[in-house]
Amino acid sequence: MALIVTGTIGIDTVYTPTGHAERVLGGSGTYFAAAASFYGPVRLVAAVGDDFPPAFMGTLGHFRGVDMAGLEVRRGSRTFAWGGKYHPDMNGRDTLFTELGVLAETPPKVPETFRDSRFVFLANTHPSVQLGMLEQLTARTLAVADTMDLWINTAKADLLVLLRKVDGLVLNFDEAELLTGKRNPVSAGRHILEMGPRFVVIKKGEHGALLVHHDGIAALPAYPTENVVDPTGCGDTFAGGMMGALASSPSPDPGAMSSIRSALAHGTIVASFNIESFSLERLKTLTKREIDARVAEYAAMIRV
Amino acid sequence: MALIVTGTIGIDTVYTPTGHAERVLGGSGTYFAAAASFYGPVRLVAAVGDDFPPAFMGTLGHFRGVDMAGLEVRRGSRTFAWGGKYHPDMNGRDTLFTELGVLAETPPKVPETFRDSRFVFLANTHPSVQLGMLEQLTARTLAVADTMDLWINTAKADLLVLLRKVDGLVLNFDEAELLTGKRNPVSAGRHILEMGPRFVVIKKGEHGALLVHHDGIAALPAYPTENVVDPTGCGDTFAGGMMGALASSPSPDPGAMSSIRSALAHGTIVASFNIESFSLERLKTLTKREIDARVAEYAAMIRV
Repeated sequence: MALIVTGTIGIDTVYTPTGHAERVLGGSGTYFAAAASFYGPVRLVAAVGDDFPPAFMGTLGHFRGVDMAGLEVRRGSRTFAWGGKYHPDMNGRDTLFTELGVLAETPPKVPETFRDSRFVFLANTHPSVQLGMLEQLTARTLAVADTMDLWINTAKADLLVLLRKVDGLVLNFDEAELLTGKRNPVSAGRHILEMGPRFVVIKKGEHGALLVHHDGIAALPAYPTENVVDPTGCGDTFAGGMMGALASSPSPDPGAMSSIRSALAHGTIVASFNIESFSLERLKTLTKREIDARVAEYAAMIRV
Repeated sequence: MALIVTGTIGIDTVYTPTGHAERVLGGSGTYFAAAASFYGPVRLVAAVGDDFPPAFMGTLGHFRGVDMAGLEVRRGSRTFAWGGKYHPDMNGRDTLFTELGVLAETPPKVPETFRDSRFVFLANTHPSVQLGMLEQLTARTLAVADTMDLWINTAKADLLVLLRKVDGLVLNFDEAELLTGKRNPVSAGRHILEMGPRFVVIKKGEHGALLVHHDGIAALPAYPTENVVDPTGCGDTFAGGMMGALASSPSPDPGAMSSIRSALAHGTIVASFNIESFSLERLKTLTKREIDARVAEYAAMIRV
């Protein structure tokens, strides 16, 4: 069933302990859509400036499942750009610069042809913008949002309104702690459920993820790998793999505990491929067959 | 088959963010033996001073599977005592004081009647002492050692000799990194296998554990719980549950990947009960039925 993502397309400059990449394709919408495209069509709503390199448009086009009818190329505007440097253990990073560009302008519109989307992912942006997007998508059956510390600190009231309208929330553990004041991830998850969603996925980076759902709890380790090049986009590819798997699943209740749990294994594995390169290099050569093989390997690794 | 542990019995003073306990029963051998006793008999080799409180002897006696024939009570000596304070997130701790007492004396002897032990756990102490213990246990089929940063820094040559003689090593991630110089846990694990053992279990506290084995890799999250009182002894109860499960298993090859993986689920769950109280309070009321029920719940939580 139709999946839509609203997010950013950006130009990233990334430094990791083992290398760096300058002005490469990035952004939450980009990573999410590329990851989800392995499972079926995905509609991307985002804006770029007229400085957006044609080569990057070609990269987006490489992911054939991505429907770019919601991509606005704005004359006289600049594309969002971000630079970051990862800490030696790659568990944290510092932002070097942020050039908001089109992100400081009016959000992109959801095209009429996208209004019938059933699966909705609202990548991280101001919660009032997320809410505006959500309200245009009245045919939704499952809506999931991401958020970040900036909005928890500066727009909590808007975020709380949003949380009453989404089915799921995906966020990092630090952010869950900030949102709830609870250090324990299970306690933080339960607290967030009281704010509205049916489930919350607390991401812990290399330590995996915790699903706290109305109907139970699931714990998933990350895929153990030595091949770690650049964590940029792993949260978004994780969400993309998860939502792609949900949207392509025949489950009559995609928000059910068992559906989300299986989908999280796919998110974990798509992210484990993404971390193997800068930008979308690894995803460009990735196949669904490779994903399925690693999902099976992962399922065996975590069986007890 | 007969399981033996060589380790410490101590008197602990512990401060956590939610409370404290003064001069309570602790020590690696104590926690290990209590945990393993749910699976069958376990032989404890350790020494205490004549200051060791009779009430603590009663607590040890409460765990009926623990064979105390290897417990030396030394006249004129003092029992090992340790004080520690956990950080607010309970992932780290500072040592407040250490009174070595009997630990500064000759190590306890392995009784003749214990020499036929098949399963051996060498809890953390100087690797040359571990080696001395190991050499007395010539009937062993599976020997596993713990270690710590102190010995990696001060007795690495002895540790490397030990590693060529044990089947498995259990240690914290920080210690694995220190031992190998590798930040990536899979890389660190593979490096340790080159030092001799057939498998290594890298403990990550609340983030679970990674098994790197000659025959593959397994990742286990911790049991997600809100009931966190005191992490003291969790590493030792984890090892005790693991070794107890291995010693009581009918597997013809207890060191095989599948055997270790299943045993680690038991270690994870016994540790998850231990964290619910100070000292051995929770283990004193724990039943094997409760362990098995939570192991089943855990297996469902990590299934994808």
